[in-house]
Amino acid sequence: MAKSDFGFHHRRRIEYAEIDAQGVVFNSHYLTFFDTAIYEYLRELGFDAMVYPEETGHDFHTVRAVVEFHRPIRFGEEIDVHMRVARTGRSSLSFAAEIYRRDGDDRLTSGEVVWVNADQATGRSAPLPPDLVERIRRREGDRVGSTEQGS
Amino acid sequence: MAKSDFGFHHRRRIEYAEIDAQGVVFNSHYLTFFDTAIYEYLRELGFDAMVYPEETGHDFHTVRAVVEFHRPIRFGEEIDVHMRVARTGRSSLSFAAEIYRRDGDDRLTSGEVVWVNADQATGRSAPLPPDLVERIRRREGDRVGSTEQGS
Amino acid sequence: MAKSDFGFHHRRRIEYAEIDAQGVVFNSHYLTFFDTAIYEYLRELGFDAMVYPEETGHDFHTVRAVVEFHRPIRFGEEIDVHMRVARTGRSSLSFAAEIYRRDGDDRLTSGEVVWVNADQATGRSAPLPPDLVERIRRREGDRVGSTEQGS
Amino acid sequence: MAKSDFGFHHRRRIEYAEIDAQGVVFNSHYLTFFDTAIYEYLRELGFDAMVYPEETGHDFHTVRAVVEFHRPIRFGEEIDVHMRVARTGRSSLSFAAEIYRRDGDDRLTSGEVVWVNADQATGRSAPLPPDLVERIRRREGDRVGSTEQGS
Repeated sequence: MAKSDFGFHHRRRIEYAEIDAQGVVFNSHYLTFFDTAIYEYLRELGFDAMVYPEETGHDFHTVRAVVEFHRPIRFGEEIDVHMRVARTGRSSLSFAAEIYRRDGDDRLTSGEVVWVNADQATGRSAPLPPDLVERIRRREGDRVGSTEQGS
Repeated sequence: MAKSDFGFHHRRRIEYAEIDAQGVVFNSHYLTFFDTAIYEYLRELGFDAMVYPEETGHDFHTVRAVVEFHRPIRFGEEIDVHMRVARTGRSSLSFAAEIYRRDGDDRLTSGEVVWVNADQATGRSAPLPPDLVERIRRREGDRVGSTEQGS
Repeated sequence: MAKSDFGFHHRRRIEYAEIDAQGVVFNSHYLTFFDTAIYEYLRELGFDAMVYPEETGHDFHTVRAVVEFHRPIRFGEEIDVHMRVARTGRSSLSFAAEIYRRDGDDRLTSGEVVWVNADQATGRSAPLPPDLVERIRRREGDRVGSTEQGS
Repeated sequence: MAKSDFGFHHRRRIEYAEIDAQGVVFNSHYLTFFDTAIYEYLRELGFDAMVYPEETGHDFHTVRAVVEFHRPIRFGEEIDVHMRVARTGRSSLSFAAEIYRRDGDDRLTSGEVVWVNADQATGRSAPLPPDLVERIRRREGDRVGSTEQGS
């Protein structure tokens, strides 16, 4: 992937609370960076992730997360967390993420997060809301893959 | 893998601070669970991760982390974070992790963390300390793989 | 106060994720240490903080927290977070906290946390459950103060 | 105090990672909000908190923190963390903080954080850098108190 494959990013400045004794962002915070960028991506699509479970009885669960740490990130640096949906399944959304320094072209981090939509009463996976899939398609165009089989 | 493939685990009880609005452990905390279990594993091997960088000018960086979330974990539950070295490379340690409920056989989480040893002055990867590799071999026996090529 | 004023403590070992670029526990984590020790204290009293809101429609909110940082705490240190109820009001519980190194007498931290019981439907403060007050009295004896006026 | 007593604020949107099972910001995160706003305040004054310890051998330690939680804050809300120096001592900086919703006048949180400047070699408190005190005076004018005695 290249930075140009992403149509959305969430900017943040690294906080002192996020760095460790090596002076770089501690590894677990990257999953928070991804999580927050996903919610901002969905917000931009007009999808309200807090209203969704109340209205439908469904909610998303994170089932897989991968982080590749290419370069360390330091206190005070401004980073752009690029996020897109790479694939939609029957009930799953696979997000691709890359982090760059603001205005930089050096890929600092890449990653993947998979969410599955589940019925909160039964715990079983449930089809993605068609309206959300439609918004993702309009947003991502050809960049989004799709598999109706499997999850 | 099976639970019996692990010779070490770190026990913890889920804290209120670790759960989210769904009432389950928030995803980023799993990387902290893995990280802490790795340090406890190393402590048990007699390796002092804080003294190491001071004495050698080398230190470990996390270069990859994967989490597979099989079942949610709730407030107050006691979990065992099983940890082992699955592979040693020239400069890398690959850890395999699995989380089970205390006394349970249901695998809640599985994961992988890769550390690379690096020279702090140059930033380049450096060979693993032979003494640490030896301790790991004695601990893990045939369960630990090895690749001298690559990282 | 002295260490001997406390009849309960919660032990923990400082994790790498909890230290900052100065190599000491980052300040916000102390509130997590207090919070977790409070839940463990309540658990020992037989009070289930997760069942309580479901059964009564009431829940506790933190309304005040104070931390005095006397000495830094480092990675790998084992600490005992001593906790007691210092005062019960009509709807409030005031907790006093002190942190010591395991087997140490040097007070590293002291603090205070105030919880108020509130009706979740109206948001208004509500009287403490008498059963909980009774358990606290039995536990703390003369060490616990009480004010029926005010919150 | 009133909102108008503050000449600086740091804006942030509440992340999913910051809320707890009650659906509101977990209490320890408020200390991170304060900490980050302090660093942003210092950045605006032209004070580089990462360079300072390297150049002088001195650094700031948090010695006291107080949070008063007036109203809960929820996922997705944009908040302004207002920050000012309320008092300078010989070696200490006392910060006053208040949190408001973006464009709101309802005080959600108030707090206090005290930093002490210390010589990193001896651990003893050391006089504040005069240049920083001067910048704070210019910024805060009559709003900042001062005590040369004590810390």
